[in-house]
Amino acid sequence: MLDIPKNFQFAGVSCGIKASGNNDVSLFVTHSEATVAGVFTQNRFCAAPVTLCKERLSQGLANAVVVNSGNANACTGDEGLANANAMVNQVAGLLHVDASRVYVMSTGIIGQQLPMEKVATGIGAAYLQLDDGHDAFSDSVEGIMTTDKFPKCTSQNLVFVKHEGEARLIAMAKGAGMIAPNMATMLGLFLTDVAIAADHLQQLLSEVCKESFNKISVDGHTSTNDTVLMLANGASGITLTPGTEEWTMFRNSLCESAISLAKSICRDGEGATHVLDIHASGLVSESDADKIVHAVAESPLVKTAITGNDPNWGRIVSAAGYAGVNFDAAKVSLAILGTTIFQDGAPIPFDAAALSGRMQDNEEVLIELTFGEGESASNCWASDLTTEYVEFNSEYTT
Amino acid sequence: MLDIPKNFQFAGVSCGIKASGNNDVSLFVTHSEATVAGVFTQNRFCAAPVTLCKERLSQGLANAVVVNSGNANACTGDEGLANANAMVNQVAGLLHVDASRVYVMSTGIIGQQLPMEKVATGIGAAYLQLDDGHDAFSDSVEGIMTTDKFPKCTSQNLVFVKHEGEARLIAMAKGAGMIAPNMATMLGLFLTDVAIAADHLQQLLSEVCKESFNKISVDGHTSTNDTVLMLANGASGITLTPGTEEWTMFRNSLCESAISLAKSICRDGEGATHVLDIHASGLVSESDADKIVHAVAESPLVKTAITGNDPNWGRIVSAAGYAGVNFDAAKVSLAILGTTIFQDGAPIPFDAAALSGRMQDNEEVLIELTFGEGESASNCWASDLTTEYVEFNSEYTT
Repeated sequence: MLDIPKNFQFAGVSCGIKASGNNDVSLFVTHSEATVAGVFTQNRFCAAPVTLCKERLSQGLANAVVVNSGNANACTGDEGLANANAMVNQVAGLLHVDASRVYVMSTGIIGQQLPMEKVATGIGAAYLQLDDGHDAFSDSVEGIMTTDKFPKCTSQNLVFVKHEGEARLIAMAKGAGMIAPNMATMLGLFLTDVAIAADHLQQLLSEVCKESFNKISVDGHTSTNDTVLMLANGASGITLTPGTEEWTMFRNSLCESAISLAKSICRDGEGATHVLDIHASGLVSESDADKIVHAVAESPLVKTAITGNDPNWGRIVSAAGYAGVNFDAAKVSLAILGTTIFQDGAPIPFDAAALSGRMQDNEEVLIELTFGEGESASNCWASDLTTEYVEFNSEYTT
Repeated sequence: MLDIPKNFQFAGVSCGIKASGNNDVSLFVTHSEATVAGVFTQNRFCAAPVTLCKERLSQGLANAVVVNSGNANACTGDEGLANANAMVNQVAGLLHVDASRVYVMSTGIIGQQLPMEKVATGIGAAYLQLDDGHDAFSDSVEGIMTTDKFPKCTSQNLVFVKHEGEARLIAMAKGAGMIAPNMATMLGLFLTDVAIAADHLQQLLSEVCKESFNKISVDGHTSTNDTVLMLANGASGITLTPGTEEWTMFRNSLCESAISLAKSICRDGEGATHVLDIHASGLVSESDADKIVHAVAESPLVKTAITGNDPNWGRIVSAAGYAGVNFDAAKVSLAILGTTIFQDGAPIPFDAAALSGRMQDNEEVLIELTFGEGESASNCWASDLTTEYVEFNSEYTT
């Protein structure tokens, strides 16, 4: 049972952008103006909707988010920006709010102009179907999906004892899978009915993204459209400020949702059979630990070893070895699923068949690297690499 | 017909390290003491033979190189270092030269101790078969191969008009393919009978590696054993010094050999069907251009697009976009096999079917990215990514 935050409404419709006939336009509306925060792709080729969102974020207020899937509106020049603006203006007109309060996200094929007649029809239909029920919410989650095999959303009911009240947080994301000719996108949306000042909200969202979405890798290819938005409309009557117990509780809940969605994206990585849960500790700095976990996560040799349920320590430690981090190789140890197989720089005997069997049985494979350099640690999650990924991404010809 | 440099002898034998029965011990001897230069892996887990070579390189002189394949002698601790020393000492004893003049390279499975009885028998047999003929040379090239599908060597006869003489340069390399459970290795060996002072030779080799082997990527995973050595024994009577016309000619010849071998390694990358020849120009610095060509080379989405003969500009420009380089996206253009498909930040019409057909017909696919930032350029070569690569590297279980 989903806990829908107050004063939010949803809709998802099919307007024909996707050939599949699945929903491809979603509308998220808050009837109490919300503070808003956003985190966006670092790609130099950022899409028109990203440009538009970034421009209005300094105002920090939102009434609605409109999303289309099936077309990323990326590398589409001035016409693309005009189309993103047209989407926003249409929603603003329907809701009688200022266009600067409407945000837009797009995901799908890049380099093609949006079919604006279809999109306009879709937005009009979505507006008429706005509702705060579960069906409307499900429809809206479907409308942001591209190659995702399953929808990704979380919902939390938060009890604030001090405030003697409750608030709610729902969150959704779409997968980082990429399928030719689509350059798909990581999109995330967090909606809550607590009140949080815009600057605090932005800092909170940035921190949480760093601990969740920025720690995942399906294939190391950063898309042009990545966007995570969070809206807090205050309809619960509960206002949160940093430094309080309630703030910590809310932050933890938000983190939990974000990490859960992030891991879902890895689990649903194209062709993926395992999620790699990679930890590095005992480094001089968190940045060193980050470099190591990402080098391991992005090595195709590590990924294919995990695909094959092969506890291949050589591939893992040698990936750590080229991460650009100084460490004493004689102080490195490695455990897979809790079994130490490499200690103080040398392999140690272990039951390889038994460990391989456990890797096969576990969708999530824990990889723990420990170093003897310092006290800092980091972690990340990654999809493994299968022939299905390669087939998926090589079989299309423009 | 190979041009063998004077006073070099070769041998390659099978001593049983490899189950296949192919040659696995090679010996390269120069009967005039040579200057020597070396370039090694940057991996923090460097193999015992790499440690040993680095230690003695400061002396700059060599009489022999002994190589084994089938076992990388990496992550093998003190016993591994003792074994590498034993190989070197045996060769030194047979040749009656100082052990500091003997170099060693290993490639193959990591984390296992060398079968030293077999290796010693192999070195003894190789010594007895030393010869300067083509068969001996071919045997020695086979002895450094692991998963390579074909041997990689070049030979050049160099005419020095000013010196009224000739000299020779032969070079060989083994592929960067990696097959479970092996962490294979890029090994290269250059042998010439010109004389070059050790410090000049080292600078020359470092520069040439930067322009060749350091510009290739099969899968972005740097091995623990990568080693390139060059021996110059002066037996031609020709001495070369930097700043002369002859030096430039020799440098060009050396570069040509190195690039040819580097490209062969990409062509023979596991499962590879294309070599990507990636160029970036118009950047502020060569380092920026390097970042861009490597981001493109290592994107699995770009690789799989090329596998599928798909002129997918979106994947290529977006990989450039996350390379960590500042550029104006509106000044970026892209050509594949000479056909411009993206100009000044936007796609332009082209005959996709015709271009795809040409990609299918060309083993080497030229990808040219141009930017509007400056005058610097770089390039690199990469293998594409096929289901065969993934099968190869995931089907093994320890």
